[in-house]
Amino acid sequence: MTITITAFERSPDGGRGLARDMRVRWALEEVGRPYEVRLVSFKQMKEPDHLALHPFGQIPTYEEGDLALFETGAIVFHIARHNRGLLPEDDNARARAITWMFAALNTVEPPIVEREQSRYVVGDKPWYGELLPVLEDRVRVRLDQLASRLGDAQWLDGAFSAADLIMVLVLRRLEGSGLLEEYPNLSSYVARGEARPAYKRAFASQLAVANHDRGAEDAERQ
Amino acid sequence: MTITITAFERSPDGGRGLARDMRVRWALEEVGRPYEVRLVSFKQMKEPDHLALHPFGQIPTYEEGDLALFETGAIVFHIARHNRGLLPEDDNARARAITWMFAALNTVEPPIVEREQSRYVVGDKPWYGELLPVLEDRVRVRLDQLASRLGDAQWLDGAFSAADLIMVLVLRRLEGSGLLEEYPNLSSYVARGEARPAYKRAFASQLAVANHDRGAEDAERQ
Repeated sequence: MTITITAFERSPDGGRGLARDMRVRWALEEVGRPYEVRLVSFKQMKEPDHLALHPFGQIPTYEEGDLALFETGAIVFHIARHNRGLLPEDDNARARAITWMFAALNTVEPPIVEREQSRYVVGDKPWYGELLPVLEDRVRVRLDQLASRLGDAQWLDGAFSAADLIMVLVLRRLEGSGLLEEYPNLSSYVARGEARPAYKRAFASQLAVANHDRGAEDAERQ
Repeated sequence: MTITITAFERSPDGGRGLARDMRVRWALEEVGRPYEVRLVSFKQMKEPDHLALHPFGQIPTYEEGDLALFETGAIVFHIARHNRGLLPEDDNARARAITWMFAALNTVEPPIVEREQSRYVVGDKPWYGELLPVLEDRVRVRLDQLASRLGDAQWLDGAFSAADLIMVLVLRRLEGSGLLEEYPNLSSYVARGEARPAYKRAFASQLAVANHDRGAEDAERQ
């Protein structure tokens, strides 16, 4: 059955691989499943057709036959459950990998998103300069703990898993903040993820959308 | 095998059922599994023994034989995977329920926690009165979308599932903020969760810890 995912028609990051469809693209590349992409505009994301697929009006979504899913954690987990290579077979190791998937999304990502979004919602306030360091310290608390746990290990719990895939992309959201660079082992961990052939294919695919979009803009300007 | 979870020795909420061990207690009560509770102090939570179980120094944790887990989403999912009654058997319905578990934890909970924590980290700043309404509006965006999707339904996707268990407890964190009361269907949804016998048993268990603690404090004061 054909797998169709949605992605931004014009990604706010211009193809730096920070949009959440990257998580699903990477997972599908790891397990070697082809997929189609339907691009949606910001306007379409808030319209009834898209809201029927994604009640919170975001991307990506995942459709396969009768099944429609949203939330990258759930989509990546669904892919991992139905294909080999993203979760260990041993039951306890699998439960621990799932634990790290939730940890990436519910413990590590929220303060990172909070810091990132603060610029959009209160970045123009005179007191933003006081708030930002507080939010950055909240990110550091989690990075300190994660760096301590990871230590010199290659991946979070033995072999590469769906949890590493999500954690690497969550950490990549710090790009440009300088925060990740304070943790050499976390920087190396992200670099290990980015070096995987499946990551590179996924990255190239999302970049092609951005480049195509820029090409179209250039053509319009002629 | 005995299941042991950890919980706060002195819960900051004084037994109102808002601490995260409530999620695990409720799940275990729904499937009828007995469990033991090891209480940990704030000091112990940051010590090596506890950090070995929970790298982010929080509660609850879950131990069963050789298996040690953290993150409530993962623990509740593990319980649901090994016992009947918390996730549908049909594969697509199961994938949708898992989607809602991730949505509760990664989309609905973060702005709620952000609002809640802001008081502790910047509540003493002269500009806090300007920040709080912005954070409340971010919570409302999610509540609007959730209320639209839920409509008149009893539960998120057909029968009660682990996703409802988590979503109800995530929404309960808004207690005292007045925000939930703006959404009559979400308030009814939370009340339906709280009316379940398993919820009531879980609530009573965590309250007993708080009451015992208060009893001990009273005794100390005599």
